[in-house]
Amino acid sequence: MQQFFEIEKVSEGKARAGHLYTDHGRIETPIFMPVGTVASVKTVHQHELKDDIKAQIILGNTYHLYLRPGMEVMQNAGGLHKFMNWDLPILTDSGGYQVFSLAKTRKMSEEGVKFKSHIDGSFHMFSPEKSMEIQRQIGADIFMAFDECTPYPCDYRLAKKSMNLTHRWLKRCITWCNENEELYGYKQHLFPIVQGSCYSDLRKISAEVIAESNCVGNAIGGLSVGEPEDEMYRITDEVTDFLPKDKPRYLMGVGTPWNILETIGLGIDMLDCVMPTRNARNGMLFTWNGVMNMKNEKWKQDFSPLDEFGTSYVDAEYSKAYVRHLFISREYLGKQIASIHNLAFYLDLVKVAREHILKGDFYEWKKSIVPILKQRL
Amino acid sequence: MQQFFEIEKVSEGKARAGHLYTDHGRIETPIFMPVGTVASVKTVHQHELKDDIKAQIILGNTYHLYLRPGMEVMQNAGGLHKFMNWDLPILTDSGGYQVFSLAKTRKMSEEGVKFKSHIDGSFHMFSPEKSMEIQRQIGADIFMAFDECTPYPCDYRLAKKSMNLTHRWLKRCITWCNENEELYGYKQHLFPIVQGSCYSDLRKISAEVIAESNCVGNAIGGLSVGEPEDEMYRITDEVTDFLPKDKPRYLMGVGTPWNILETIGLGIDMLDCVMPTRNARNGMLFTWNGVMNMKNEKWKQDFSPLDEFGTSYVDAEYSKAYVRHLFISREYLGKQIASIHNLAFYLDLVKVAREHILKGDFYEWKKSIVPILKQRL
Repeated sequence: MQQFFEIEKVSEGKARAGHLYTDHGRIETPIFMPVGTVASVKTVHQHELKDDIKAQIILGNTYHLYLRPGMEVMQNAGGLHKFMNWDLPILTDSGGYQVFSLAKTRKMSEEGVKFKSHIDGSFHMFSPEKSMEIQRQIGADIFMAFDECTPYPCDYRLAKKSMNLTHRWLKRCITWCNENEELYGYKQHLFPIVQGSCYSDLRKISAEVIAESNCVGNAIGGLSVGEPEDEMYRITDEVTDFLPKDKPRYLMGVGTPWNILETIGLGIDMLDCVMPTRNARNGMLFTWNGVMNMKNEKWKQDFSPLDEFGTSYVDAEYSKAYVRHLFISREYLGKQIASIHNLAFYLDLVKVAREHILKGDFYEWKKSIVPILKQRL
Repeated sequence: MQQFFEIEKVSEGKARAGHLYTDHGRIETPIFMPVGTVASVKTVHQHELKDDIKAQIILGNTYHLYLRPGMEVMQNAGGLHKFMNWDLPILTDSGGYQVFSLAKTRKMSEEGVKFKSHIDGSFHMFSPEKSMEIQRQIGADIFMAFDECTPYPCDYRLAKKSMNLTHRWLKRCITWCNENEELYGYKQHLFPIVQGSCYSDLRKISAEVIAESNCVGNAIGGLSVGEPEDEMYRITDEVTDFLPKDKPRYLMGVGTPWNILETIGLGIDMLDCVMPTRNARNGMLFTWNGVMNMKNEKWKQDFSPLDEFGTSYVDAEYSKAYVRHLFISREYLGKQIASIHNLAFYLDLVKVAREHILKGDFYEWKKSIVPILKQRL
């Protein structure tokens, strides 16, 4: 049987280049996963994701998909791949994070979370078993254990209590998965999530519990929730030391281009974030030369290509002055161009990072490129 | 010298199939022209316009482009074609219509119109000469004489007074054009506009004055402003009888798919309308089978292709259920898909109409297809 994860090369430090194998295709790691919240990566066509952005796997949000289009439509469609016409891998989150951040009201218990929909105020219940069931119906290639994500800052006792609940919920997720078959004829892989806020001892305990669950891959949650960047790096560094070396590590919800390179340097293989698309819709572009605010007067008469080092057609086809005009005039096309650009850049970023890991000069390269990526143009 | 318009075939009635020749390429007539208000056909990429929608010529709005990005940027870019990266023909309106419908306040005089920008409240003046100058700077292949467009209904005396002003303004437009060279090395063609509201005698006078101006093409304005469909057809029918047969006739701002076929049947060669894109953004799709409201519950579980007779990739790539989900979830992609679909349909509509004109059975075909196009699905 084909193994799920294969490491091609480990650099002098902790960075690794490898491959993930799913029934919807192979993924090169480290990888960035564009976020397709409600069965759409906002403003981007599916063929653009594949052909122009070179996305290898995208994310779906369980909470959103459960509410709209709902699981009846999802199952009748034959799962999310068929519903949105995307035949490469998909990963879904557990719904937990959105219940805590979006739902109108919620009530926690050992059993799970009761919540009120942010759309129509209707009542719903997510439990570990329910989350597994929904993610089976969505049919993601990789799906996440149901966890509680603590805010930042978080009281030590609360963080510990929450972490223990997440661990108990994990056991119920695994039991459910062992007792229930996949729905659509292809393999789904469960990833558990390390929690423990910014407390080193809790993170160590959580990483060990998660490692013992012996899933094919592991995730780090509860970061990028408002803590300082250094804290995020420190916790990531500590946790990757305790997670199995031979399994992929997914850092959830991170981040800026430099966050991505720094955490790849700490042994992360998979990342996702709404930043490239959300910031794109506000006119912020990430490039190999730094960050551009497209609404800036500076670009008004700059008729040079949008990004001379860009890999997508939008970078050559449209000028800076034109894209600025679209943002100033609030034209949809501005958001579309910027979203394609940013996602293509993020995919190029991890691709080039991978090349440097394989070449053996990743840390040297990272040190030289990070200050440039952070520049404001 | 290449002539501007060539008629390939006139059907048993007034419908004609022909070609328009511009320095940015040949256009097959009858043609529908997508509207690219502020240098963008809303939600649509330029390569999609060309490759998927098969647009042969697009429209730009002088009023909007004058305000944003403004003429300094436009001239430095080398005109609208270069600014937006569109190398096929462009037509611009005169700015008159938007001054009357969008500007905050306006003051008419023999000289022109003083108005306050709807964006920042700044004061501006459009005169026939100014409109010509701006359209030269935009660099459209076909540009329109500065006219006053009367509302509907319109008092006879007011309609007559306004028409006479439009005729005097036309003279000033032609004089300006004779005295001023093109800016970008390619030919720009001026079209005058027939006015006269819904009064047959005024329309006849106006058509004769416009015909006498001996421009390479002629337009009919002041329709599709709220009058009954029958009135629009009646006036169009009357006016095309008085306009030169050997020159293209452009009916401004029309309309629904059936309006387009009916007026092609009355001798119209060129049409434009925001309807396919505006209605698309609200979830209304035009198809060969009739009109679909994508927000309808009916499509919730319909996983068949968006439009089995559609010519664009979106019609095969996305299902009705998926596009409904995007509209219900207010995802940008829904607007994008619907806009591509509707424009591709409009271009297919005029293409098929042209084939029937060439084949000689246009009126028979139109009679059979119009009731189907009007159906609510």
